[in-house]
Amino acid sequence: MHRSIATVSLSGTLPEKLEAIAAAGFDGVEIFENDLLYYSGSPREIRQMCQDLGIAITLFQPFRDFEGCRRDRLAKNLDRAERKFDLMQELNTDLVLVCSNVAQDSLSNESMLVDDLSLLAERAHTRGLRIGYEALAWGRHVNTWQQVWSIVHQANHPALGVLLDSFHTLSIKGDPSAIDQIPGDKIFFVQMADAPLLAMDVLEWSRHFRCFPGQGDFDLANFLAPIIRSGYTGPLSLEIFNDGFRAAPPRSTAADGLRSLLYLEEKTRRVLEKDPTPPAALDILFQPPKASRYAGVEFIEFAVDEPQGARLGHWLERLGFSCTGAHRSKAVKLWQQGEINIVLNAEPYSFAHGFFEVHGSSLCATAFRVKDSNAALTRARDFKGQPYRGLVGPNEREIPAVRAPDGSLIYLVEPSQPGQRIYDTDFQLQTNAKTSCGLNSIDHMAMALPAESLDNWVLFYKSLFDFEADDEVVVPDPYGLVKSRAVRSPCSSIRLPLNISESRNTAISKAVSNYRGSGVHHIAFSCDNIFEAVSRAKDAGVPLLEIPLNYYDDLAARLDFEHKFLSELAYYNVLYDRDPQGGELFHVYTEPFEDRFFFEILQRKNNYAGYGAANVAVRLASLAKLRANR
Amino acid sequence: MHRSIATVSLSGTLPEKLEAIAAAGFDGVEIFENDLLYYSGSPREIRQMCQDLGIAITLFQPFRDFEGCRRDRLAKNLDRAERKFDLMQELNTDLVLVCSNVAQDSLSNESMLVDDLSLLAERAHTRGLRIGYEALAWGRHVNTWQQVWSIVHQANHPALGVLLDSFHTLSIKGDPSAIDQIPGDKIFFVQMADAPLLAMDVLEWSRHFRCFPGQGDFDLANFLAPIIRSGYTGPLSLEIFNDGFRAAPPRSTAADGLRSLLYLEEKTRRVLEKDPTPPAALDILFQPPKASRYAGVEFIEFAVDEPQGARLGHWLERLGFSCTGAHRSKAVKLWQQGEINIVLNAEPYSFAHGFFEVHGSSLCATAFRVKDSNAALTRARDFKGQPYRGLVGPNEREIPAVRAPDGSLIYLVEPSQPGQRIYDTDFQLQTNAKTSCGLNSIDHMAMALPAESLDNWVLFYKSLFDFEADDEVVVPDPYGLVKSRAVRSPCSSIRLPLNISESRNTAISKAVSNYRGSGVHHIAFSCDNIFEAVSRAKDAGVPLLEIPLNYYDDLAARLDFEHKFLSELAYYNVLYDRDPQGGELFHVYTEPFEDRFFFEILQRKNNYAGYGAANVAVRLASLAKLRANR
Repeated sequence: MHRSIATVSLSGTLPEKLEAIAAAGFDGVEIFENDLLYYSGSPREIRQMCQDLGIAITLFQPFRDFEGCRRDRLAKNLDRAERKFDLMQELNTDLVLVCSNVAQDSLSNESMLVDDLSLLAERAHTRGLRIGYEALAWGRHVNTWQQVWSIVHQANHPALGVLLDSFHTLSIKGDPSAIDQIPGDKIFFVQMADAPLLAMDVLEWSRHFRCFPGQGDFDLANFLAPIIRSGYTGPLSLEIFNDGFRAAPPRSTAADGLRSLLYLEEKTRRVLEKDPTPPAALDILFQPPKASRYAGVEFIEFAVDEPQGARLGHWLERLGFSCTGAHRSKAVKLWQQGEINIVLNAEPYSFAHGFFEVHGSSLCATAFRVKDSNAALTRARDFKGQPYRGLVGPNEREIPAVRAPDGSLIYLVEPSQPGQRIYDTDFQLQTNAKTSCGLNSIDHMAMALPAESLDNWVLFYKSLFDFEADDEVVVPDPYGLVKSRAVRSPCSSIRLPLNISESRNTAISKAVSNYRGSGVHHIAFSCDNIFEAVSRAKDAGVPLLEIPLNYYDDLAARLDFEHKFLSELAYYNVLYDRDPQGGELFHVYTEPFEDRFFFEILQRKNNYAGYGAANVAVRLASLAKLRANR
Repeated sequence: MHRSIATVSLSGTLPEKLEAIAAAGFDGVEIFENDLLYYSGSPREIRQMCQDLGIAITLFQPFRDFEGCRRDRLAKNLDRAERKFDLMQELNTDLVLVCSNVAQDSLSNESMLVDDLSLLAERAHTRGLRIGYEALAWGRHVNTWQQVWSIVHQANHPALGVLLDSFHTLSIKGDPSAIDQIPGDKIFFVQMADAPLLAMDVLEWSRHFRCFPGQGDFDLANFLAPIIRSGYTGPLSLEIFNDGFRAAPPRSTAADGLRSLLYLEEKTRRVLEKDPTPPAALDILFQPPKASRYAGVEFIEFAVDEPQGARLGHWLERLGFSCTGAHRSKAVKLWQQGEINIVLNAEPYSFAHGFFEVHGSSLCATAFRVKDSNAALTRARDFKGQPYRGLVGPNEREIPAVRAPDGSLIYLVEPSQPGQRIYDTDFQLQTNAKTSCGLNSIDHMAMALPAESLDNWVLFYKSLFDFEADDEVVVPDPYGLVKSRAVRSPCSSIRLPLNISESRNTAISKAVSNYRGSGVHHIAFSCDNIFEAVSRAKDAGVPLLEIPLNYYDDLAARLDFEHKFLSELAYYNVLYDRDPQGGELFHVYTEPFEDRFFFEILQRKNNYAGYGAANVAVRLASLAKLRANR
């Protein structure tokens, strides 16, 4: 597939944008007119710049308010077009986007629109140029692809074709399924944009909230599928108006853009493969190895110095973990309980293996249990993930890994028989019969991310691992709002709530500031009996986060709990949530470990699927109080 | 008027909120239930805290999904109410907000709703408590004040009354005019919220975009007027859900809240004074002196050190200003041209008269020409403005002044006869016959503000000076979006565009960061002949901001300009804009002075009223290029 992106999707000056687009691996670029108007170089210089960078100029856009204009303006409008044709020839692009007229006084007569566009197409044709006609969702008279195709079909001019934009169709709940009735060579260009579903004015939505495919809520695969069926083989181009992208560094935005197209192509391929006769053009779509099956978190690894390691070990011990092994060649300890494996790595310079500086203890690696680690790695690499192979000492196994967006490692570990597990080869194991708290597994790991990086992380997990993303949840911290969006493996064996906050003084923002970037926010362990687990942890001296009694008074008012049961909840600071299907969550938080992260112990009943969002506000208020008292 | 605010309107812990509310001068507070649930102290402790701070608890809220609930839940719901009544008695408040049921399965039968609410009212009544019933705009069956009043009227219970919230009526375009038909003593409580007009889901709009009266687009004076006519004398309370307020320091938010109520009361008073028989209750509304007439900017004053003063003076000289005076007792110089007076103050420690530190040359004072400076000062003080009286040396006149939100000074200067002007008394004047550039007056002064402070500034000018605020304009900087909202005196003799940006790397954000807060962004001088003025400035060596030729090629394509005229525009880097009414703007920018601010020279034709928003993007791109090249 020929992959392209509009300059308006990125921040920066025109040269900065073009360099970022080339670096991300795009084949082409749409030049958004304003980027050219505001640039001090000539169109010829821009053409040369693109040529040097190896990207084609796929489109010049937009040309507005032409067809059906007031008759006294038609001649002037044609003059205006000729000026832009001059410019296109200097740029060396043959295609211009003409978007449907939005002027209040524009005319609706369809045969007039056909005539106007034929006239324009003929002018273009004599100069070897072409017109792509697009329906804006808010066009005065033309706002569907069906109208555009009807006009293009009637005009029947070789230089006039259909230009499709997913946003303009899907934002007004248009049906794209019959696009495959258009001959592929009459579709001149395809623009792709996703967006979150927002009940707001379409123009505002379009101008500020578009996002890359996979970051929003549109069903883009079923938009692209009929286009591929039509035989279209032209560029697939991203045209994203997004306030965040306008402010973010262009290189990382462009890289996400390319990844989003690969993601969309794979999803579209899956749709098309279900066709009785898949189209021949299927082969132009990106084809990575299928995602492997994930089966939980095998281990997590913290980078610590020796004293931090000792302090964190002490916390783990009180939480019922046992230190069961020491690494054969490194200053690395293994702590275990149930299926949970926690590695404390105190090797100097080992943190995230030299990728970034240590600022206090941090989660530096997570290992996912995966059925086929090599296929998983190939897929990650195909999606432009950064693979990692570390130093391998004597007796150590090499584990395939890929960098998470923050540079920490995600190991891909295949299940092994007892005796052949990574711990058996790399660690000297010892059996310590300590009292467990009954913690079974890592239920979820919540991350604190810089506000602008959420979409990047979501797309990373969705594409490389084929994870799913839950809807965004907004919860109040006493000092601002927090947004949370969880990604999880298809069977929910791995769950990663990703948290951001645009307010400076929330717990999330403080964590991001402490980490100088993203970092783990809390780690939740599951258990089968919350009161047993918490009681043991409390007895062992684990500092539990205190929940106000007012919270339990409200539970009493709202629910039919017995007084004794409520007292027990309150005594152990256990929070409670219930979903509409009768699922129940019992959960308790610890105080933070050295102002970095904290632990959660939880019990899910009746397939409760969430993370206790109803209780996040009280947890944040209690954390804020704790911080204020220090 | 008894003035109140809901705890949910502010950020922080409950004690932080209560302290801020008391400090701002409110009489009372609505306790939002969640603030209580998340607080570790008991309701009795909160009651004591409020008593110590001298604020009454005016309301406990909300109690949800009661009336018309499924019959099997009614008993449980009454139990839930009794628990909350317990809590109210501990808090020592007698009024609870019951908002209309939103549950999908709630029942619509009006007589049932009357019965349910009568039952609840009777339970409250036996404990000396009262119920305020409110229609949520998104209530399942009840969503207008008319329905609420109908139900309250039928119930005819002394403990059941109407609770009004401006947002819930105005957001769904409800008509408040007949509220005066409700007996005043059947209105138990009034909540006030403004909001910008946004075409979006009402619930989302309500939860994130409410703002204080005067900061949004609602006609609140005509909402409050019929309430006052009804004879209502209870609290006027702010209930604002706003993402920005949730993150801002509670004390400044609370201060704005109180000011917004004063502003609303004055506006409401003006509406009521037009009644043939103004209501007796008119007297409970705030009554400041009427705003004075403003007639332009008398002078602006920069704080500089000696070398900065020399450099800035050199810029002014090239712009056609003459140094016409030296202060009698201070290191202060006067520069003049046309009606423009610029003071360069190089007194050590003089910057903003000790209010904040100097970080490079900054605008430290602005003087408004005003008809009655003492009335203007009284009004400013009544609206909680901070008056200022500086040190007055021999021969110096004392000028009334008030602090702007950033601590700089706004002098209030009455017009004087020649020979008796402030310059005549304070300065030793000299006549320097220099070449003027034909600049007449200060057309506008644009400010760069921290993103979160825009609403504060807008309310400051609207209330203290009775200025008007234009609609917000959004323009793209290459590194993010910029929002601009202009405030201006009623006759537009003083115009102050206020600019913010939520993106870190825009020109506005860089300016805010350079100033370590708000500061002047650019100063625009008007002239009668743009080409004459710019030509002289260019000859004198003023560095004009270079505009790309591509911009003029586009003008050529769009407009019927002669080639020669376009060449002249391009040669002098003059930007052009035209409004739909035929008004025209010609304007040119200088490069920035020491990375701080820049100057603009403009000519308005045919009553062009804007600021050239269409050209801001090209200006920002040119500025960004200039920055990048340094």
